[in-house]
Amino acid sequence: MPLPPFTPIVEALPEAVPFVGPEAIERHTGIATRARIGANESGFGPSPRVIATLRNAAPDVWTYPDSENYALRTALAAQLGIASDEIAVSEGIDGLMGLLVRLFITPGDIVVTSLGAYPTFNYHVAGFGGDLRFVPYRDSHEDPEALAAMARQTNARMVYLANPDNPMGSFWPASDIERFVDAVPETCLIVLDEAYLETASDQGPPLDTDRPNLLRLRTFSKAYGLAGMRCGYAIGSRRLAGAFNRVRNHFGVNKLAQIAALAALDDQPYLHDAVTAIAAARSRIAQIAGDNGLAALPSATNFVAIDCGSDGPFAVRVLEALGQQGVFVRKPTAPGLDHHIRISAAPQRELDLLSEALPLALRQAHSAA
Amino acid sequence: MPLPPFTPIVEALPEAVPFVGPEAIERHTGIATRARIGANESGFGPSPRVIATLRNAAPDVWTYPDSENYALRTALAAQLGIASDEIAVSEGIDGLMGLLVRLFITPGDIVVTSLGAYPTFNYHVAGFGGDLRFVPYRDSHEDPEALAAMARQTNARMVYLANPDNPMGSFWPASDIERFVDAVPETCLIVLDEAYLETASDQGPPLDTDRPNLLRLRTFSKAYGLAGMRCGYAIGSRRLAGAFNRVRNHFGVNKLAQIAALAALDDQPYLHDAVTAIAAARSRIAQIAGDNGLAALPSATNFVAIDCGSDGPFAVRVLEALGQQGVFVRKPTAPGLDHHIRISAAPQRELDLLSEALPLALRQAHSAA
Repeated sequence: MPLPPFTPIVEALPEAVPFVGPEAIERHTGIATRARIGANESGFGPSPRVIATLRNAAPDVWTYPDSENYALRTALAAQLGIASDEIAVSEGIDGLMGLLVRLFITPGDIVVTSLGAYPTFNYHVAGFGGDLRFVPYRDSHEDPEALAAMARQTNARMVYLANPDNPMGSFWPASDIERFVDAVPETCLIVLDEAYLETASDQGPPLDTDRPNLLRLRTFSKAYGLAGMRCGYAIGSRRLAGAFNRVRNHFGVNKLAQIAALAALDDQPYLHDAVTAIAAARSRIAQIAGDNGLAALPSATNFVAIDCGSDGPFAVRVLEALGQQGVFVRKPTAPGLDHHIRISAAPQRELDLLSEALPLALRQAHSAA
Repeated sequence: MPLPPFTPIVEALPEAVPFVGPEAIERHTGIATRARIGANESGFGPSPRVIATLRNAAPDVWTYPDSENYALRTALAAQLGIASDEIAVSEGIDGLMGLLVRLFITPGDIVVTSLGAYPTFNYHVAGFGGDLRFVPYRDSHEDPEALAAMARQTNARMVYLANPDNPMGSFWPASDIERFVDAVPETCLIVLDEAYLETASDQGPPLDTDRPNLLRLRTFSKAYGLAGMRCGYAIGSRRLAGAFNRVRNHFGVNKLAQIAALAALDDQPYLHDAVTAIAAARSRIAQIAGDNGLAALPSATNFVAIDCGSDGPFAVRVLEALGQQGVFVRKPTAPGLDHHIRISAAPQRELDLLSEALPLALRQAHSAA
């Protein structure tokens, strides 16, 4: 027996990465990525003012970051019309997910999510011994009604819903989300993942921080173009937002991340331009799909799911054939969703490469059948 | 009862910050920090090549970091003469501590450390329900022999030793550390915190990654001058280093942190210069102490502990009186250590301010007695 022993929960965990990154794929395949359109990053980049601010701040990285994320929380609070202690900042939504599972889940507690939804959430739930229960998607949507019903039936401690959804790009208007929130028991924490909210047609229900069981997660990784900086935030009651202070790595958010996020928030005209560019890129991706006889799903996010018109193994072959041409995309893996591939909104150059690569990829996928 | 409920461990935790940062102190007191010499950062800053590299990389922050920290682990492995999978990278040593406690500690497990040693380690142990046992310092040193004895007697799961030590700056030569490691049972994980190793007179025992219960923690926050970037690493057996992959936030290390750390590692001449400057600053701090009739302790770190020549409350008054003059320092709080204040090595300007401020601070501390 190897010594010292891991905890029983850790002993049972694999050394797994929820997502294999494009750099890792490059190292394994030896094929250079020419179009990086698989991780729902924003190829439109951050605001030029953010880049200039980062350059100016580079000599200052010898000091620790502010452990209270004070300036960023204050700016977010002003923008959102809530109090700064109703906001918690951490190393991306992924970091917040690990912390919130730790706050609420003991081994065996039931956590409800959708079959095929964000795998990193599941990774953290498993990491603390939670008992995951899965609700199937309804068509290409997460099913809020069924999620709430499952939460009630199982006496779940936590229920996860992404709106807009990843990996399908679908969206429920604010009124549907409000109905979902009302239908979940107050004993169950609602984790509403709004990573892609900036690109959606409405901004969700009003921010009701009086609701004791609703935590909303947002990020600078998507429309703001700062995925590399790892900065996300949670919005909830003072009790919920403050609870992160019990367990978080207080000096964990990089100083340049704090500075970049603050500068990004301050440049709303750029955000507007980026959202417009993302919408145009979504249309272009839909057109490329149509040109190849495939259907693109409507999307409220910075990516588009494309129905490859056959089964899951066929879609895997399309993805692999795109990868052979240096076009990095990802795909859903759950039954009922797995015949899609998922393309990130990107500048023209990347989508031109997609447009060139997709016909050959489809031919190769067909001929390998 | 507020709902949903926290886990029992979390319910019992305070919303505490192990260290109150200088920005928070500024906000609370309204006094601007003129000399930032309390957090053991390096006022000498990072290498100019690191700053230039960061500036060049600023436009690239739209992509997620490499989840495997591959380039940095490969470069560290080459420098250290070990394998890259004997290294784990995370958001500073603080981040590694949270993860390693989670890997090994279940509620009630005993963890041994020194009374007055690094409080963030204790914060994480408490955060997972560990049972902390404290060994007093011997003079101004952590006491390896007593720590090992306590680990044996209590059947501890984990024992912590910082070498060089924080907050006292003391250091045990490699041979003493080797004796300590041999004296700890193999069932007990040894957490050897080497955050300040670059400024010490030897680089510790040879890297023996075959030892199943030794994990060494290092950082880019101190001599490398990158505290704001949050990048630390752990060195241990493949089993130990790989275990972090079971629980870590895989995309948690900021992309610019990866880039900066790699560039810093690549500029060893700058590190040598920084270490030289830090040593000179230590001498200057000792001289300032002596000019004021106080004794400075020998230091192997980037800070110096100064014996204020009286009791703990007196040292608190000195610290507060320095703070009134905008000179930010910290101090040990444990009995037997608490009559010291702790001054970070810094450039001439900051130490000039210390030199000006200390006489008044001492007079004020005396007159308030």
